[in-house]
Amino acid sequence: MTLHETLMEMGDRAVAAERQLATLGTRRKNLILEAMAEALEANRDRIKEANSRDMAAGRAAALTDAMLDRLLLTDKRIDSMINGVRALIGLKDPVGQKISRWIRPNGLVIQKIRVPIGVIGIIYESRPNVTVDAAALCFKASNAVILRGGKEALESNLALADILQSGGLRKGLPPHSIQFIATTDHEAVRELVQLEGRVDLVIPRGGEALIRAVTEQARVPVIKHYKGICHAYVDESADPAKALDIIENGKCSRPGVCNALEKVLIHQKIAPEFLPRLIERLAGRRVELRGDEAARVLAPELAPAQPADWDQEYLDLTLTVGLVPSLDAAIAHINRHGSHHSDTILAESKKAQDVFLAQVDSACVYANASTRFTDGGEFGMGAEIGISTDKLHARGPMALEELTTYKYIIQGNGQIRP
Amino acid sequence: MTLHETLMEMGDRAVAAERQLATLGTRRKNLILEAMAEALEANRDRIKEANSRDMAAGRAAALTDAMLDRLLLTDKRIDSMINGVRALIGLKDPVGQKISRWIRPNGLVIQKIRVPIGVIGIIYESRPNVTVDAAALCFKASNAVILRGGKEALESNLALADILQSGGLRKGLPPHSIQFIATTDHEAVRELVQLEGRVDLVIPRGGEALIRAVTEQARVPVIKHYKGICHAYVDESADPAKALDIIENGKCSRPGVCNALEKVLIHQKIAPEFLPRLIERLAGRRVELRGDEAARVLAPELAPAQPADWDQEYLDLTLTVGLVPSLDAAIAHINRHGSHHSDTILAESKKAQDVFLAQVDSACVYANASTRFTDGGEFGMGAEIGISTDKLHARGPMALEELTTYKYIIQGNGQIRP
Repeated sequence: MTLHETLMEMGDRAVAAERQLATLGTRRKNLILEAMAEALEANRDRIKEANSRDMAAGRAAALTDAMLDRLLLTDKRIDSMINGVRALIGLKDPVGQKISRWIRPNGLVIQKIRVPIGVIGIIYESRPNVTVDAAALCFKASNAVILRGGKEALESNLALADILQSGGLRKGLPPHSIQFIATTDHEAVRELVQLEGRVDLVIPRGGEALIRAVTEQARVPVIKHYKGICHAYVDESADPAKALDIIENGKCSRPGVCNALEKVLIHQKIAPEFLPRLIERLAGRRVELRGDEAARVLAPELAPAQPADWDQEYLDLTLTVGLVPSLDAAIAHINRHGSHHSDTILAESKKAQDVFLAQVDSACVYANASTRFTDGGEFGMGAEIGISTDKLHARGPMALEELTTYKYIIQGNGQIRP
Repeated sequence: MTLHETLMEMGDRAVAAERQLATLGTRRKNLILEAMAEALEANRDRIKEANSRDMAAGRAAALTDAMLDRLLLTDKRIDSMINGVRALIGLKDPVGQKISRWIRPNGLVIQKIRVPIGVIGIIYESRPNVTVDAAALCFKASNAVILRGGKEALESNLALADILQSGGLRKGLPPHSIQFIATTDHEAVRELVQLEGRVDLVIPRGGEALIRAVTEQARVPVIKHYKGICHAYVDESADPAKALDIIENGKCSRPGVCNALEKVLIHQKIAPEFLPRLIERLAGRRVELRGDEAARVLAPELAPAQPADWDQEYLDLTLTVGLVPSLDAAIAHINRHGSHHSDTILAESKKAQDVFLAQVDSACVYANASTRFTDGGEFGMGAEIGISTDKLHARGPMALEELTTYKYIIQGNGQIRP
């Protein structure tokens, strides 16, 4: 079979699985999730054995220590995957929910009902825990899933996907509900994202290069975020103590993630007082600060920011600081240079907050809080399949509800259109 | 300027307009809609004059009478456009609506707020009334719009778009909120659908060839339907009189539209009684009936249906009839051959209705009613920008709410993530 035929067959099998998945009730799905968790528990040795082969290949390929660490599956990490599956049992099932219902003058009863999306493709890199998280979350929303993980984790991923599918099968999981693409051939990604009519949605997770490649090749809908260039704007009305805490948290608590702070804009009126305190605070955390010209007038010790700095996601302990003459200028800057992900205003003025919250065109807009809260768990969704900076279907953290769509059910008693 | 530069500039202008549109309140938007309606009223002569140039060119190009009729703008049709604009004034403004609000244990207040999508591209054919309908509807949801109409209607469309924009401008419509692509160059469509970062959504309206071309070239999200292959399934429990009325209405009331009925599946138990009555009823309406083998055993006078008939949208007084052994077989057939648009079950059995409504994977699924009701107006939405058979963002009739997205607004008092 050619790669094209293989993917077409996977697509056909996923569609067949999806038809059966759509008929499962919440209780049955929860029994299957428990069976998946138990299967992971019962197959620890198999998981670790498969993982050790990936680790050996990774060492032979001279992967960095950081990459090897992301690849490694310890008992603690397996526990965490098992807990993640069990946590879904307690979450409300969105499928079947009545979004709205109304009756037309002619007596037609129209209901808008939440239903699964269908077949979802997930494309991701290195960490094998994504295999379990994504498969279980798509399943809880009654979707079939086709997974494509990074080549470094192939053995681990194949084992995990097989354990979930065969473990769930014993409690009624339809065959081929969870499929993993077994080849590392790069062309498989292209085939997957062009399966129009078989795959309803692709969610790519990983670096910007991966996501751009997926988006450019795709014929099926893709929900994604390229990067997170998150801003804090320090208004003239800011409480400096709060602002310092929030900026430090945004930059330092986990610099390598998409909701970390990358840029700070300071109102020029408050800058002479605020900037030195910010420099001092971040120096204690070894953050490399870069300043625009106006900031360097106040603090000549800052490294000069280049124009390209404003459009760059550092994912590191680096931060660019600039001065703005007004709230409006801050908003215009963020809408132009930001990534429409998460941005925060630090201001005591309610009016300034309201203008910022209304006019910044990002998925998540904060007042006096850290951008690091952009996360399905922190939002109270109980899980997360990804974050969207797209505007259609889902924006911001995506969880169970965002893995569904709706349909209209219209009940009549013989109505015809005049 | 190259075509690419022209479209980039239109995109930039639309983005600038969109920033201002997002700040307009409902009252202001309604004043602008009234000003647009008045401008159409005041410019009847200009509209008819531009239209007469299109008509002359159309006659010179030997357009069919049907095409010329679609192109023609009479006073009555202009009245209808004006009424359409005024009707939007009374519709509820979805922008700013609070979809949900919750408070996290750490005190963060999270609100999910409906906001405009941003910049919408509309690509359509012949009828110039779409220019007015689409522009006014996108505007009511605070979106900027870039229109691209059929080349036959270029003069009419340019006049209408200019009248709307300049009429609205007098009451505060931001410049370039409504733009029309003035060239008929085919490449302009490609440029438009590849304006990533400037255009947030493209809605193509027209024949399948147009929509496929748009979808294949697009880099920005597209919402669409290719075609409407709508089914009626006549269950063994059907009330034959209701079923005949609904099938006749579905096929004959307007055969050229996407929600018209194209296929009828009859349960084999009821077929010996029902099929002859159906043949008789539709003969009276001059419908050409094609039957599968089992139908032709009962009614040898039927023209034989070819396998390809099941996947074809006739848009004409033609209907294919087949027999099925069960409800399940009907559902499987519809999910395989249908276009996921609108399908109806004709059944008195509540159980059969429930299975059909749950398992048919279409945007609109009916019990005992005509598929012809799939329409924004008939659903009570007050307007319609199109119908989606896609699964993401919007499914079925799309109106004001479907021209919005949401964002999260998170208010804190200094929260940082532990």
